[in-house]
Amino acid sequence: MPRPIITLTTDFGEDSAYAAALKGSILSVCPEAQLIDLSHSIPPQDVVHAAFFLSEAVPWFPAGTIHVVVVDPGVGTSRRLLYVEWPEESGERQPAIAMQRLLAPDNGVCTLLWRRRPALRILQISNSRYFRPVVSSTFHGRDIFAPVAGHLANGLDPIELGNAVTDPVQLPFPQPQREGDRVRCEVVFVDHFGNLLTNMHRDDWPGLAIVEVEVLGIRPRWVRTYGEASPGEVVALWSSGGWLEIAVVQGHAAHRLNLGRGVPVLVTLAPTAGSRDAESS
Amino acid sequence: MPRPIITLTTDFGEDSAYAAALKGSILSVCPEAQLIDLSHSIPPQDVVHAAFFLSEAVPWFPAGTIHVVVVDPGVGTSRRLLYVEWPEESGERQPAIAMQRLLAPDNGVCTLLWRRRPALRILQISNSRYFRPVVSSTFHGRDIFAPVAGHLANGLDPIELGNAVTDPVQLPFPQPQREGDRVRCEVVFVDHFGNLLTNMHRDDWPGLAIVEVEVLGIRPRWVRTYGEASPGEVVALWSSGGWLEIAVVQGHAAHRLNLGRGVPVLVTLAPTAGSRDAESS
Amino acid sequence: MPRPIITLTTDFGEDSAYAAALKGSILSVCPEAQLIDLSHSIPPQDVVHAAFFLSEAVPWFPAGTIHVVVVDPGVGTSRRLLYVEWPEESGERQPAIAMQRLLAPDNGVCTLLWRRRPALRILQISNSRYFRPVVSSTFHGRDIFAPVAGHLANGLDPIELGNAVTDPVQLPFPQPQREGDRVRCEVVFVDHFGNLLTNMHRDDWPGLAIVEVEVLGIRPRWVRTYGEASPGEVVALWSSGGWLEIAVVQGHAAHRLNLGRGVPVLVTLAPTAGSRDAESS
Repeated sequence: MPRPIITLTTDFGEDSAYAAALKGSILSVCPEAQLIDLSHSIPPQDVVHAAFFLSEAVPWFPAGTIHVVVVDPGVGTSRRLLYVEWPEESGERQPAIAMQRLLAPDNGVCTLLWRRRPALRILQISNSRYFRPVVSSTFHGRDIFAPVAGHLANGLDPIELGNAVTDPVQLPFPQPQREGDRVRCEVVFVDHFGNLLTNMHRDDWPGLAIVEVEVLGIRPRWVRTYGEASPGEVVALWSSGGWLEIAVVQGHAAHRLNLGRGVPVLVTLAPTAGSRDAESS
Repeated sequence: MPRPIITLTTDFGEDSAYAAALKGSILSVCPEAQLIDLSHSIPPQDVVHAAFFLSEAVPWFPAGTIHVVVVDPGVGTSRRLLYVEWPEESGERQPAIAMQRLLAPDNGVCTLLWRRRPALRILQISNSRYFRPVVSSTFHGRDIFAPVAGHLANGLDPIELGNAVTDPVQLPFPQPQREGDRVRCEVVFVDHFGNLLTNMHRDDWPGLAIVEVEVLGIRPRWVRTYGEASPGEVVALWSSGGWLEIAVVQGHAAHRLNLGRGVPVLVTLAPTAGSRDAESS
Repeated sequence: MPRPIITLTTDFGEDSAYAAALKGSILSVCPEAQLIDLSHSIPPQDVVHAAFFLSEAVPWFPAGTIHVVVVDPGVGTSRRLLYVEWPEESGERQPAIAMQRLLAPDNGVCTLLWRRRPALRILQISNSRYFRPVVSSTFHGRDIFAPVAGHLANGLDPIELGNAVTDPVQLPFPQPQREGDRVRCEVVFVDHFGNLLTNMHRDDWPGLAIVEVEVLGIRPRWVRTYGEASPGEVVALWSSGGWLEIAVVQGHAAHRLNLGRGVPVLVTLAPTAGSRDAESS
């Protein structure tokens, strides 16, 4: 039987003993678990960043993976703790978020995953039988999520965790706005290379393709891949996750263009038959 | 049989090939070991930081875990290398540091762990039979600790490593000073969120509770959890590890108050019956 | 049977969802693989840095390890993807780079490994049967390398991947130049501690030892280990990887001396009989 996989996403920092304690607490319940660090460098308490991060990472894991997410500015308040599970059969979009399981505070970190694919069930983690014997008031990751993840990896039926939740917190994540052949979207994420990722996804309007992109007066050339442009050129393309991306080839777009989260991006669409996407390939 | 767990704590940095070589060297002896990164971002050669880090991380791991610690400003001098082992049965404090095993230079990184719970035995690692065939003069982590950890994971009896050590190096780690109902402690650690952790532990004076905290003229409000205060408020509370902590709710106390390691903190105590801890809950 | 070991080396950054997706994509093919992070902090698109990093890390792993390397400034161009394999029997130098397997873009990241030990075979990864069903144009790590690594870990014969490559890209990595008893080498790597590593290796001229080192007018004292000098002293020594290293004891040589990659270093040699190496021990 393959060993259970448990991933970790936190804002604890690479230098943090909190991430270390989290790992120890999981392994104390399920020493056989295979722990996979997704990142401990989510900007502190940045739930929006975490939501985007998860939507890019979670779908690629094998069915049955358990994801522990501790980005939790509300620790010590009455915010709920959630168990979220996606259905097994595959969805339309690829990758399919098939049978992923996730533990997170109820603060909206799943908003983008839910937008890509609705959850099969969401439960409130409330059965203290699966918590550590002593629960601190400031570190529920170590004292609740970690042992619960360990018990789930050991085969615990999630139904034991608590009641269904029908009104999880959703982030007011901006949606692209379309009017005729024009879409107004915005930068929602800057990646490690300085690429600007927007909230417009390739699958949002099937049958339409992008003919022009404009960001604060700049009109990046539309390409399919960085290799079509010269180093230093400003380009727009679909990111590897399917989002509209603005990049500087072999450069750092965010620094070079002095742009960041929230910057508006205007897009012009046309039917796919004469799409730039097809033309440029 | 569960796979042996070996954790890694170093000051090599996330960008370092040294951490990579350390992992390879362990796996070359015990390919079955489950390697767990605690942190490679201990500030370079900062043994005091490492001591606090370990005291927060090590106790949470399952019995039998082997911890490899390479924060070693004395590499290439005659400083000893230690094998440290804690007893199996649980101590009074929770978590209990039960049956943890640790390999580290003899530079005091275990000082706080020993203060929480005395070791069962400490041995000097000197039997070169379990070292790499060629030992460099600057990287004992890779050439000595790594293969020794691998052999221990494979079942080697630690008694083979070397003789008992009765005088390990202890850091002159400051102790909180109590005079009547007043305690003078100090900040010993700043965590990733900017929270200030002191050397006063909840278990230091059972039966007494904190009624006032003062740090350089500031009197943080005593709370049980961040959720009792408003964002931006300066609070004092017991950290998740049981240390007296000064924090700014959803903010960075070290930057905001311009405080760091070594800053004195004054605490007023009262018997628990009328304790603020009880009152505030 | 031991679980297959797959290591990861990227320039994605510790905060990156790309590294997370890479891991998920590998585990989706081979859930049993043991994933080992070497580093995700290679400076963005710095192939020279990656080449040095790999030469310090790869040789220490057990035979059969699969190394996935995604430092890929040419993604989306026609650059090839390589499978590289080293022979099983051990070479002269220790460690021996025995039976290591590596997946990387054809951009020269293996240059230093090849210089230490020629590959047994190099194949072009071109058989799309082992790719993800949909291959993006900007993330071949996730869509090609990851599933191929998973299939290799599952036992795939590499011969299935594609044809032999006889002309892989080699970096114009500077070689030390010797004239009589003088060698002119240069700094090629600055490590996390600020130590300056040059391209001159201990094994380059057997029978000769270093009697003097000069870098921009500074003459570091030759030592065998940091412990022979005082804190703050500038020294030269063989690094743990066998390279000529210039260091400041318990300090940061790159900052202190204001030196970095490309700085020339002059070395004077003498026959080993009267070598400084022997004298100083």
